[in-house]
Amino acid sequence: MQVIERVSELPTVLDAERRAGRRVGLVPTMGALHPGHHALIQRAAAQCDVVAATVFVNPLQFGRGEDFAAYPRDLGADVTRAGRAGADIVFAPAAGDMFPPGHQTTVGAGRLGEMLEGASRPGHFDGVATVVAKLCALAGPSRVYFGEKDYQQLLIVRRLAVDLGFPVEVVACPTVRDLDGLAWSSRNHLLDPHERAAAPVLYRALRAGAASILAGELDPAEVGALVGDIAEAEPLVSLDYAAAVEAATLAVPEKLHGHTRILVAARLGATRLIDNVGVEVPA
Amino acid sequence: MQVIERVSELPTVLDAERRAGRRVGLVPTMGALHPGHHALIQRAAAQCDVVAATVFVNPLQFGRGEDFAAYPRDLGADVTRAGRAGADIVFAPAAGDMFPPGHQTTVGAGRLGEMLEGASRPGHFDGVATVVAKLCALAGPSRVYFGEKDYQQLLIVRRLAVDLGFPVEVVACPTVRDLDGLAWSSRNHLLDPHERAAAPVLYRALRAGAASILAGELDPAEVGALVGDIAEAEPLVSLDYAAAVEAATLAVPEKLHGHTRILVAARLGATRLIDNVGVEVPA
Repeated sequence: MQVIERVSELPTVLDAERRAGRRVGLVPTMGALHPGHHALIQRAAAQCDVVAATVFVNPLQFGRGEDFAAYPRDLGADVTRAGRAGADIVFAPAAGDMFPPGHQTTVGAGRLGEMLEGASRPGHFDGVATVVAKLCALAGPSRVYFGEKDYQQLLIVRRLAVDLGFPVEVVACPTVRDLDGLAWSSRNHLLDPHERAAAPVLYRALRAGAASILAGELDPAEVGALVGDIAEAEPLVSLDYAAAVEAATLAVPEKLHGHTRILVAARLGATRLIDNVGVEVPA
Repeated sequence: MQVIERVSELPTVLDAERRAGRRVGLVPTMGALHPGHHALIQRAAAQCDVVAATVFVNPLQFGRGEDFAAYPRDLGADVTRAGRAGADIVFAPAAGDMFPPGHQTTVGAGRLGEMLEGASRPGHFDGVATVVAKLCALAGPSRVYFGEKDYQQLLIVRRLAVDLGFPVEVVACPTVRDLDGLAWSSRNHLLDPHERAAAPVLYRALRAGAASILAGELDPAEVGALVGDIAEAEPLVSLDYAAAVEAATLAVPEKLHGHTRILVAARLGATRLIDNVGVEVPA
């Protein structure tokens, strides 16, 4: 396992791998690696010859009053976990090396970054887009792995790679869940035991929403209300949004059709969680 | 001479060149190639093994009411000129291929993009930054050539390459001037004969500004006023700005010192021209 801390070193190392004929896989993370990340790295290792997991808590994607300082950090544990999952390289730059003083170029995610999570977290996706663009530029030609858990982020990264012309293939991996259905997130262990016990309601609500669509409900507002009502029936849950949208654009259609995504965001105590499921509307 | 029109083709062609051990030079232009571009391509050909000149009138960097439609376009002539200067490849994508429907990711130039030209042309440098980022992403590891004529653009592109981590080396080339001192610009031949005869006053004004600094004037406002007064003494000139600033940051210092740049922008009839010179303040 090679740990790279200097931004200038990553392109050199990965260029040498490519010159030797090896295909590069990149798995961007903010660390605090959990089984969801494990699955991303495993998939990358199965499809690529050399896998670099990046561990960087990106200050640009946290808003004022969000949990940047509290976000869990343990590089030693992350290196061990990344290695077990199949990573060959961990890229863990210092914030002052990724975004040195004078840094001022930013990437804007556009319309896709303004709705849902973007409406709740202004500037969040521009911060994501800026760091992902830089990681793509540093990594060079590669496959880049993102989880469906952050579904809106996945769409934005796909769009970004095409729009800016990066020679990367974005690979989406299914959400990994704990036994009770809660999607793995680095924020889960900020939950206290009561909140942790309540949290799976989000996935139950999403499944109920999907079931209602499969049973014939085509009004996105009705599906969103159903999901929101189920989530809010849990007293520890404070709902942010629940929405059924077109999977490709996140637009709210008049009537649901084709590839549909149901997304939910809620706060449990001080911790904000998001989740989503896909559903194919019967023709 | 190879003309590439498809965006997807450029990375493939340039990757093959690099695999064959050849160093790639990139010369981004908006076409209407003149002796300034010729010098950029010539310099690239001297320093690189394969040179791609790009010809793309970037809609994102024109504001409402600016001369996007009137901007001169003649691909056939540009291919001939680029080849004579030493280019091996002309990359001339269609606008709908560079920025297809649904395109929404943008690059923001930051503070450097807000002053001087940016204040006069809101959004201009974000449009420049977006297309340059895409050209860098498509081209891959390379040397990229820009002229000092567009000095603020040069600073922004340098900053962008570092900030976003592109594996490119930005090479600055001196402004090329006509015999009477007018900086070559694709917009020069939009001038009528009277305007063309009046236009060299901009360079004369800049030289007078530089001379005043060398003679001991260290107040940036005084230098700017002198340059502006000389330019405006020409009845066909409508001054936009004249400023003496720190060369690295474009900041206006209290007292001029070290690397200094004097910049001027003015309208002659319907045509807006810019120019600048560097001056080293005596210690």
